[in-house]
Amino acid sequence: MTEMRTLKVALLGCGNVGAQVARILIDDAETLASRAGARLELSGIAVRNPDARRDVELPHELFTTDADALVKDADLVIELMGGIEPARTLILTAIRHGACVVTGNKALLAQDGPTLYEEADKAGVQLSYEAAVAGAIPILRPIRDSLSGDRITRVLGIVNGTTNFILDQMDTTGAQFTDALAEAQRLGYAEADPTADVEGHDAAAKAAILASLSFHTRFALEDVFCEGISSVTASDIAAAKDAGFVIKLLAIAEKLADPDGHGTAGVSVRVHPTLLPREHPLAAVHGAFNAVFIEAENAGELMFYGQGAGGTPTASAVLGDLVSAARRIVLGGPGRTETTTGHVPALPIDAAVTSYYIGLDVADQPGVLARIAQLFAEHGVSIEIMRQTIHRDSAAKAESAELRIVTHRASEAALAATVEAVKGLDIINSVTSVLRVEGV
Amino acid sequence: MTEMRTLKVALLGCGNVGAQVARILIDDAETLASRAGARLELSGIAVRNPDARRDVELPHELFTTDADALVKDADLVIELMGGIEPARTLILTAIRHGACVVTGNKALLAQDGPTLYEEADKAGVQLSYEAAVAGAIPILRPIRDSLSGDRITRVLGIVNGTTNFILDQMDTTGAQFTDALAEAQRLGYAEADPTADVEGHDAAAKAAILASLSFHTRFALEDVFCEGISSVTASDIAAAKDAGFVIKLLAIAEKLADPDGHGTAGVSVRVHPTLLPREHPLAAVHGAFNAVFIEAENAGELMFYGQGAGGTPTASAVLGDLVSAARRIVLGGPGRTETTTGHVPALPIDAAVTSYYIGLDVADQPGVLARIAQLFAEHGVSIEIMRQTIHRDSAAKAESAELRIVTHRASEAALAATVEAVKGLDIINSVTSVLRVEGV
Repeated sequence: MTEMRTLKVALLGCGNVGAQVARILIDDAETLASRAGARLELSGIAVRNPDARRDVELPHELFTTDADALVKDADLVIELMGGIEPARTLILTAIRHGACVVTGNKALLAQDGPTLYEEADKAGVQLSYEAAVAGAIPILRPIRDSLSGDRITRVLGIVNGTTNFILDQMDTTGAQFTDALAEAQRLGYAEADPTADVEGHDAAAKAAILASLSFHTRFALEDVFCEGISSVTASDIAAAKDAGFVIKLLAIAEKLADPDGHGTAGVSVRVHPTLLPREHPLAAVHGAFNAVFIEAENAGELMFYGQGAGGTPTASAVLGDLVSAARRIVLGGPGRTETTTGHVPALPIDAAVTSYYIGLDVADQPGVLARIAQLFAEHGVSIEIMRQTIHRDSAAKAESAELRIVTHRASEAALAATVEAVKGLDIINSVTSVLRVEGV
Repeated sequence: MTEMRTLKVALLGCGNVGAQVARILIDDAETLASRAGARLELSGIAVRNPDARRDVELPHELFTTDADALVKDADLVIELMGGIEPARTLILTAIRHGACVVTGNKALLAQDGPTLYEEADKAGVQLSYEAAVAGAIPILRPIRDSLSGDRITRVLGIVNGTTNFILDQMDTTGAQFTDALAEAQRLGYAEADPTADVEGHDAAAKAAILASLSFHTRFALEDVFCEGISSVTASDIAAAKDAGFVIKLLAIAEKLADPDGHGTAGVSVRVHPTLLPREHPLAAVHGAFNAVFIEAENAGELMFYGQGAGGTPTASAVLGDLVSAARRIVLGGPGRTETTTGHVPALPIDAAVTSYYIGLDVADQPGVLARIAQLFAEHGVSIEIMRQTIHRDSAAKAESAELRIVTHRASEAALAATVEAVKGLDIINSVTSVLRVEGV
């Protein structure tokens, strides 16, 4: 082999993903060099406490606590510490010292991405973050490059493996949320404190990143409406199943036309439990797998499927970014990160337009259906399917009926007003569920 | 907007895809310019007979018969003529004149790709061909870039929409091949002469391209074993269905270890009808859709799904390549096409190792199962499932039995020898089907 350049790689953080990245950099050094056109030398691994990492089978002399010095001496910096600080400061230091940066830090990107992209552009270095969304699945590069000649209209993503595992368990076994969560924790799919996953915060950060790339506009975390899955019940799942649907936690970003139907009013970015028809490609995504479904004007429907988490799969995405950045350095190309250039407004959740599934516990009296249908009509919400199941208790006395309604597409605002009004009816015992429906 | 550079785009060919590419270049000029950082000016469309294109709503003055002159004056050349010549000569002219080339010509790439890649490298221009495999689905860029830090072990692709439509029809309706083909022709999914699709030649060209990119080695069309779907019967489909499988025409490229189990002996590249378990993600790919399923050492299982053909979807892939190439020109980056660098041998079909489904019509006599099982054992082919169904004719006389066998993984050579030996048994009426099985 002819003389080959060596590029110094600094690794920040040595958790689950970081340890795998380090292992692959060492074990597969030759393959990576042939792909990148340069040797990728792991110059150090910055951690808070090197002794805590003695369990990992990595040369101990690589560990350091001086992340700042490590970064300043590197050609390529991989940030896998997570959290806002010191990750943010170290990435900015790397950029200002001319290093390309690869990160998987979705929280930082969702909060502060625009600043980082701008700094990278100014310095002429690449900032890549394929690992931040949907783990091993190549999704950001296809959106940015492969679809650069098209117009994306909608993105629906299963981007959180923990919640998909829980909902899939509930769907398969009929379990309640708390039991499915416990099972997920037992198997290591959910953390001891599962809040960030089950309340949708993790998915919301990814939704902001996906929306920004898809619509060439910078969306921040506060632009994302977010509702988790902790209030989804076994009976919601059963009712959905019965009606031919499955419930998934979706990250959704979609262009909405302005009310008069011309042009784009803006983009609705949201995370919430969603009913999907069982024949929809996303309905077949089981367990902790992730998938992103994209609708584009010319390409039509596309789906990207794979493992959304885990040390080794996520390390694959990190190394793909690393090799691509190294190639660019070797070939002397521009480091410019493709940034967002547009200015489509983020719409509030009230502007979202979707179908709804509404479950009602109603009195079993004549005329109930007509009164409810009348109320929906008054609020401009059109009903697609209405289905009543009558329950009689063993004594055949106190009678109630279960009413399930699927609406045509309506605005959140109209739906909210309708549900409020329904609650006020004397014939309503309770509103048992209100869920959004996509893919119909 | 500040002063923006203009890049001249020459379009060769104006069929289904070409006409859509031209339309989008004109209609979406502003969006494309903002993405590319340069105006993309369609400088001409080379066709054999301009008058034949009067039906297309494109400015007639764009049409020319002088493809050579058009190419020599362009910054970017889109080749959508298909076939070997004059496409090959025009692409080489474009490259030598310093133009980046975007093509969807799988036949040319499968036959002559290496020459073209080398010429593009030498000239420092990009040669992109996302549209050549699986239409709108971004698959080549993810393999080349996103998985550049990983090692792909296997690729299974549904890369021909016509055959997937036909097999899906047969599976859904129980139709025979000829009826499903007629339906596909009626709906425009199959051509009047369907040979290239149904005999697997189209899929074989794509398999060669996928294998070359996935295994960093140049595979040619003659390295691909190819078997089409014209001999798949309704009863094959029914038997597969009954056993929990679906039959798909797959393009397969997989690394095989050498017989002693160490290292890689080579890559088996093949196209044939294949049984897949119904729960496999590829089994859910219906109609004329395409999908490519990839297994990589670190990333695990990935799948890419979308429309594999059609003017507008394929145009999306062409324009993605065009905008990416234009960006590179504007930013002054290297034009080097990522080429294959390895030297893994292509293995003959005899070396392929897979499971098999074998259907036999046997005499209903005691001891038949034992004799057949013994014969398989003698040839080193291990049986996983053996299932016998006895048919009695109305007069309850002439009795025969249907025997269905699924083997464990075995080599093609061992299987072929076994089937030959089975045919020689006096208790065998006929071998009704021999099909390969993947994904188990």
